[in-house]
Amino acid sequence: MLRVSESDFLSGSRVDLPKKPWGGRFKKATHELVERFTESVSFDKRLFVDDIEGSIAHVKMLSKQGIVSSEEEQAIIDGLRDIRAEMETGEFPFRTEYEDIHLNIEARLIEKIGEAGGRLHTARSRNDQIALDERLYLRRETREINSLIKSLAGAFLTQAEDNVGVMVPFYTHLQRAQPVLLSHYLLAYFEMLRRDRERYMDCMKRFNVLPLGVCAGAGTTFPIDRHYAAELLGFPTVTRNSIDTVSDRDFVIEFIATSAIHYMHLSRLAEELVLWSSKEFDFVDLGDEFTTGSSIMPQKRNPDVAELIRGKTARVYGSLTAVLTLMKGLPFSYNRDMQEDKEPLFDTVDTVKSSLEVLAEMIKTARFKPESMESALTGGFSTATDLADYLARKGMAFRKAHEVVGGVVSMAEERGRELHQLSIEELRSHSELFAQDVFECITVEGSISSRTSYGGTAKQSVLKQLEECSKELELW
Amino acid sequence: MLRVSESDFLSGSRVDLPKKPWGGRFKKATHELVERFTESVSFDKRLFVDDIEGSIAHVKMLSKQGIVSSEEEQAIIDGLRDIRAEMETGEFPFRTEYEDIHLNIEARLIEKIGEAGGRLHTARSRNDQIALDERLYLRRETREINSLIKSLAGAFLTQAEDNVGVMVPFYTHLQRAQPVLLSHYLLAYFEMLRRDRERYMDCMKRFNVLPLGVCAGAGTTFPIDRHYAAELLGFPTVTRNSIDTVSDRDFVIEFIATSAIHYMHLSRLAEELVLWSSKEFDFVDLGDEFTTGSSIMPQKRNPDVAELIRGKTARVYGSLTAVLTLMKGLPFSYNRDMQEDKEPLFDTVDTVKSSLEVLAEMIKTARFKPESMESALTGGFSTATDLADYLARKGMAFRKAHEVVGGVVSMAEERGRELHQLSIEELRSHSELFAQDVFECITVEGSISSRTSYGGTAKQSVLKQLEECSKELELW
Amino acid sequence: MLRVSESDFLSGSRVDLPKKPWGGRFKKATHELVERFTESVSFDKRLFVDDIEGSIAHVKMLSKQGIVSSEEEQAIIDGLRDIRAEMETGEFPFRTEYEDIHLNIEARLIEKIGEAGGRLHTARSRNDQIALDERLYLRRETREINSLIKSLAGAFLTQAEDNVGVMVPFYTHLQRAQPVLLSHYLLAYFEMLRRDRERYMDCMKRFNVLPLGVCAGAGTTFPIDRHYAAELLGFPTVTRNSIDTVSDRDFVIEFIATSAIHYMHLSRLAEELVLWSSKEFDFVDLGDEFTTGSSIMPQKRNPDVAELIRGKTARVYGSLTAVLTLMKGLPFSYNRDMQEDKEPLFDTVDTVKSSLEVLAEMIKTARFKPESMESALTGGFSTATDLADYLARKGMAFRKAHEVVGGVVSMAEERGRELHQLSIEELRSHSELFAQDVFECITVEGSISSRTSYGGTAKQSVLKQLEECSKELELW
Amino acid sequence: MLRVSESDFLSGSRVDLPKKPWGGRFKKATHELVERFTESVSFDKRLFVDDIEGSIAHVKMLSKQGIVSSEEEQAIIDGLRDIRAEMETGEFPFRTEYEDIHLNIEARLIEKIGEAGGRLHTARSRNDQIALDERLYLRRETREINSLIKSLAGAFLTQAEDNVGVMVPFYTHLQRAQPVLLSHYLLAYFEMLRRDRERYMDCMKRFNVLPLGVCAGAGTTFPIDRHYAAELLGFPTVTRNSIDTVSDRDFVIEFIATSAIHYMHLSRLAEELVLWSSKEFDFVDLGDEFTTGSSIMPQKRNPDVAELIRGKTARVYGSLTAVLTLMKGLPFSYNRDMQEDKEPLFDTVDTVKSSLEVLAEMIKTARFKPESMESALTGGFSTATDLADYLARKGMAFRKAHEVVGGVVSMAEERGRELHQLSIEELRSHSELFAQDVFECITVEGSISSRTSYGGTAKQSVLKQLEECSKELELW
Repeated sequence: MLRVSESDFLSGSRVDLPKKPWGGRFKKATHELVERFTESVSFDKRLFVDDIEGSIAHVKMLSKQGIVSSEEEQAIIDGLRDIRAEMETGEFPFRTEYEDIHLNIEARLIEKIGEAGGRLHTARSRNDQIALDERLYLRRETREINSLIKSLAGAFLTQAEDNVGVMVPFYTHLQRAQPVLLSHYLLAYFEMLRRDRERYMDCMKRFNVLPLGVCAGAGTTFPIDRHYAAELLGFPTVTRNSIDTVSDRDFVIEFIATSAIHYMHLSRLAEELVLWSSKEFDFVDLGDEFTTGSSIMPQKRNPDVAELIRGKTARVYGSLTAVLTLMKGLPFSYNRDMQEDKEPLFDTVDTVKSSLEVLAEMIKTARFKPESMESALTGGFSTATDLADYLARKGMAFRKAHEVVGGVVSMAEERGRELHQLSIEELRSHSELFAQDVFECITVEGSISSRTSYGGTAKQSVLKQLEECSKELELW
Repeated sequence: MLRVSESDFLSGSRVDLPKKPWGGRFKKATHELVERFTESVSFDKRLFVDDIEGSIAHVKMLSKQGIVSSEEEQAIIDGLRDIRAEMETGEFPFRTEYEDIHLNIEARLIEKIGEAGGRLHTARSRNDQIALDERLYLRRETREINSLIKSLAGAFLTQAEDNVGVMVPFYTHLQRAQPVLLSHYLLAYFEMLRRDRERYMDCMKRFNVLPLGVCAGAGTTFPIDRHYAAELLGFPTVTRNSIDTVSDRDFVIEFIATSAIHYMHLSRLAEELVLWSSKEFDFVDLGDEFTTGSSIMPQKRNPDVAELIRGKTARVYGSLTAVLTLMKGLPFSYNRDMQEDKEPLFDTVDTVKSSLEVLAEMIKTARFKPESMESALTGGFSTATDLADYLARKGMAFRKAHEVVGGVVSMAEERGRELHQLSIEELRSHSELFAQDVFECITVEGSISSRTSYGGTAKQSVLKQLEECSKELELW
Repeated sequence: MLRVSESDFLSGSRVDLPKKPWGGRFKKATHELVERFTESVSFDKRLFVDDIEGSIAHVKMLSKQGIVSSEEEQAIIDGLRDIRAEMETGEFPFRTEYEDIHLNIEARLIEKIGEAGGRLHTARSRNDQIALDERLYLRRETREINSLIKSLAGAFLTQAEDNVGVMVPFYTHLQRAQPVLLSHYLLAYFEMLRRDRERYMDCMKRFNVLPLGVCAGAGTTFPIDRHYAAELLGFPTVTRNSIDTVSDRDFVIEFIATSAIHYMHLSRLAEELVLWSSKEFDFVDLGDEFTTGSSIMPQKRNPDVAELIRGKTARVYGSLTAVLTLMKGLPFSYNRDMQEDKEPLFDTVDTVKSSLEVLAEMIKTARFKPESMESALTGGFSTATDLADYLARKGMAFRKAHEVVGGVVSMAEERGRELHQLSIEELRSHSELFAQDVFECITVEGSISSRTSYGGTAKQSVLKQLEECSKELELW
Repeated sequence: MLRVSESDFLSGSRVDLPKKPWGGRFKKATHELVERFTESVSFDKRLFVDDIEGSIAHVKMLSKQGIVSSEEEQAIIDGLRDIRAEMETGEFPFRTEYEDIHLNIEARLIEKIGEAGGRLHTARSRNDQIALDERLYLRRETREINSLIKSLAGAFLTQAEDNVGVMVPFYTHLQRAQPVLLSHYLLAYFEMLRRDRERYMDCMKRFNVLPLGVCAGAGTTFPIDRHYAAELLGFPTVTRNSIDTVSDRDFVIEFIATSAIHYMHLSRLAEELVLWSSKEFDFVDLGDEFTTGSSIMPQKRNPDVAELIRGKTARVYGSLTAVLTLMKGLPFSYNRDMQEDKEPLFDTVDTVKSSLEVLAEMIKTARFKPESMESALTGGFSTATDLADYLARKGMAFRKAHEVVGGVVSMAEERGRELHQLSIEELRSHSELFAQDVFECITVEGSISSRTSYGGTAKQSVLKQLEECSKELELW
């Protein structure tokens, strides 16, 4: 039987066998194609901070429980800190023959501190280790994302505060519907972001649970203290079933699903920025800093950032499809397929963060154009509903009033006029209920100021929303 | 200009114009192809209970606020109850020319009670009405789903209680990993279901908010009381921004995403049932009632239910892709595209419910086969980890111990023996640390009973899990 | 052991056992929940035409090979034709206890003609039978779809011919790019549809292969003639490997993928119709027949059909996700999961067909608005590229010319003028190469007529495209 | 107005404006966040070979048409070849401030050869340039993929030839169905690969069309010759409509859809390898080179490559979802969103190629285990269909025969025997038609050798398949 000394094992040589930390029973080296195909260190190295943080907590627990000595504990912690420093300065020698971040760090630790390093993996498997790393990573990143959501929500709030008097039509079916305050419109994005933040928080409840200590999936024979490790790492609780723990990637999917809903919101915002930047709408100027040009058409100023955000929705949705596909029909417990959860996760985190960052700046500096917005309010009979409400208030059934106003609109359209340009006689030819006071309610201003229902667009209602949002934002 | 009397409007005739409740300004009838293409009543009629419940609350609120009289209120409520009865008995005359469930009910109401029926739609639009119907529907269905999850979790719990002594290998990479208790294995499904239930509850927090009263999207000029409507319908709160409210379908997506994760779990369970039913594993007998035959091969008994559940994952994932695709890049606020959210939603609800129902029965009646399970434990060196732990406890670094045991396994394999069949001399040729007591820890029973860590597979640990799960289930 | 007579088997009674055509070895009845959960006849009954056509060919082949007698052949064919008639008139008694369309027809056949009906399933399994039905169905439907694509392409061609003189900006980044002929613009859709049609034809090559005769998956012991069956059913060839044949659903996925690409095109068209119908663009009037109204806002006329088509993209994409998910990781050969391929397939066929049908009508009757289009050409410096090309033709490097014209645009913008409103002196302040002839090339008409490159927008080039498309369409 | 000299433009300085090749009209520098967010050179640099090849053809055409001089042509070609050399040696200075591969190369060219470099972009836009690059890239890669498919198909063919005598059950519903030859089983994969190859070829028909010369989307005012450029680059034809050409990414989607179907096949193969490698099946030994170990369990030998392939299906499906999502509802013509098509495309190409490469090796070296396969044939009544066929040949209706044999199986199961272990009397208690010759047809060998139908599993049929596949492979 082949045996190798510790130093052989660390040599990384491709000739001597077995070189893999798991290679005791293997007689032939891993095929080179397999090595390349299966390695994950090229992307999971991003988890190094979390892996080391987790290992430090693990060894502290092992020491507290008497499974390693306190000298070993210290050596291991010192070694791990050294390694972290090497990684931060880019000096760490990553080796694909050690497959993943875990074995790279472990092998390096043994190189640095000798046999004691080999004790770190006591009462632990890569199965629970990776589950821990991913949860620590997600916790870090979710906090960052929530902080970026706060910035973007703040940018909307500021714009809403700065544009309180501005009026704009809101659209249904991309047809002008009714006049609203621009502030009201902008706060709709605030609401979306609020729900997004809540979803991220709920998701965190589920991944903020310590998996460490379930080992390969059956638990361990060592007298470990999982709750102590949880405490060290700031987890409120620990997972309850070891088989479930190593089988579970729900939290990755839930995080990406949460991000997909969030990004869907960003895509809607992006679409509106593209529309509003078009010459046809001309409701917003994003500025030179946030637009780019054409290689052939010298006049172009394109809202590329907004388009790219709309486009990047694709990759977030794609990642969600990927992780769901990945986990479909996998029997218990850990399967190597699960390694494929990382790239979609990382890409989602990066995409969400960079998009929020650039959007917050872009919203902050966007210049809305009240003149164009208001000129869009003059055409299109956007106060027709007010006319119907008027009749309904005068006693006509609303369904009937809607019908009557349909006729009024039709007449106005034929005669090339707006509603307020019709004479009282013309109106009364449709219903005797029309009186002179009707003209107050069909101005754009009148329409807006009368929508005082909770959540409606009247100034008083919007100011209330502003206040509520503002208070809330402080608590985020 | 064309004008029609109320009765014309109700005639449903295809000649007279305008026949649509919204048709006041239209001069030509909707094209027949368009009518067929755009109608939704063929599927949204399933919301009739919710639509009527919502309308009753709406009219009560209108009456309380003096917007309709109490006579009108009573007439409307009576009419709506009549309509509900017609629907329940299948007598309701659905008409696609009224497009959707809302207009079908409204038109019928006017037929029944005359002009008063035309007042119901005061201070309301289909935009907020459909948002209300969907939320009421989801609330009903989510409660049912949670109750079905409870049944399935209960079935696992019972099987776990009934099989406490049974041992089975758990697998990683579909290779036998370590011996565990079958109860422990089954409780892993309990954990999954617990997270699923939590996700449904979190989702409910977000849709359990009243949208009614935002009307088309800008609020209304009528002096409504949205909080009162919320109270009547049991919503803890109301939506805050009218534009957001009519634009929002987050809750549909979140519900389906939650269901996709849940169904992913069912697909994993299904995969295991298929594997375990194969002759090769032979770990479970699902019984004649839960298997079906072949039209050509007389000997077949196939686990069709499990396969179909695995297969139906496809439709839940497909529905999630659909609703995310649907909402991508939609500008504010309501767009007709959003009508397409219903079929994926309904299909998801139906799929999840019918699957849970059949699974709970199937798990209840499944007969596990301890003999096959235990015979799978004899081969495959499933206690090799215990051997390594043994050496580690004797002072060898775990990494080294793993290496050494790799060699032991390799020798045993070559010699065609299991670990416990090696002599102490053979073991000691690998390490002097092996002593006679090693044989205790490499029996299947010894391996299991020593994994006493929290969440591990030792009987005491599993009994604790059983107790916790059992207590928890009572609270669901 | 329980035995039943043929008549018992047909009784459909829930008490006597075994009632299933495959139930010989089963001792307990299928659980009622399982019956409901696994039945497919509620949706696969749509394949009845194909199932019967396939069965007739099968029995003809069996008779030619002497496996059934010609009397039996005749009885079976007569019985099947009767059954088809029953189905066409809605009199056929569908029974979910017979699971699927195949067993429903077979059981009914035996009811009608007695034992001879039991011979039809000789040398056949439902595994090859369903593969045949789906292929026959897809062949029928693909031909219909291609004919509908032809109609829509024809509608674009006619509009292109009718609008040869009309000019419109084309957009990149939703910013006005350059002037083009509307005909040119419309023909871009023709090209898309041409590729779609090609893809459907390529897909058909792969499903137009006879699967019948591979039976359960290993072939049969009967002396069948698969090539004769292929000839009867118009298949150019037969499948080559029986295991592959029953495992294969590629053609379902490829058909839906082809449809997804096609529908993506329809979504882009729909988006443009929505944009062009907005007041802001106002490039097209879809007419009252193709728009609908609002339940609350009397003035609305919404492009619902276009929105729904954009929205229905979701279900086609969802179906593609579904069938791909379905087949992922399924081991050979037939698995019950595969039953789930039908609903996404049928839904895709229905969606594509109804959308094409309504779109063709809508495009035919759409009224384009040259005035709005042309007024969109006056602003936005859409001939700036022509200015740069002018300088490049005079010898300046294009990259330099682009830079110079950027400066010109910037000056024009500041001074509030269009390019052709600048004086020759103003132009020459940017480059001495500008001369009086520059003004010819920066008119909208000049810009268009000079783009004579193949595929470009000059009238002569567009007329050539029109002619080519027109000739091609005749051959479709 | 700010003006800069050519050298300023090339300085890449962040202070002087405008530095962008398209920046003539811009007054403020692009925001740093935007620069990072919108750049694509970090991933589209992979297209450098194609970009340069396309540019060389473009300038040759420009020179032939007299648009650039032959000196300029030569300088540009020399410059481009220099640049290619720089890229191949890793010396090329990529700069994200030049956004993409096109502008990086163009800017470098101007640095190298001065103003002449600025003429390369005459009669061209990045819109047609990127469409060209992607098509050239896909053509290259599709050819490579087809060659890898050939290798894998060859590996299956060789194994099929080497294992002609080996028998194995094929499965439906993961239940043993009937005995087949292993060669027959392996050739089922050959068929799948054949269809995959055909789909790639059909896809190539559609992207193998020259887009160059449509410029921004309206064609050009320069007298170019697109057909000449097509000839230089080996494209059989050119695109017909300039607007369609810059809007079209069908070919990216079709390529990924084709890859998704192909990869679905690989996932099914992978699943079978995982199953077959399990102790429970034990049908194949993948060898040490193609398996890996566990960090904690010393006995493990896991089929990681197969699992990862199954898992990587997720990313290919995710990429398909991504590109479909991307293009949904995009109005004409180029939108910046489309930049997002590249990463999913590249990832798909890489995934498919590396998977095929490792699979071909793994299949070549896999060792099938005839003993385990054959022992799986002894249990499970896998010749029951033969028994029913026997009765049908003796005149009993097949449906009746199936029923009778169901009873036989049931009796055998109760008595704990296999079919061939029943006595003739026992058989005859079910049907008088059973005679002594029945025993020939219910041996595993008899079952196989009697399935002589085309595509069936009898040796003569399989040898015919082998021969056909072998001939075909030579032509690939």
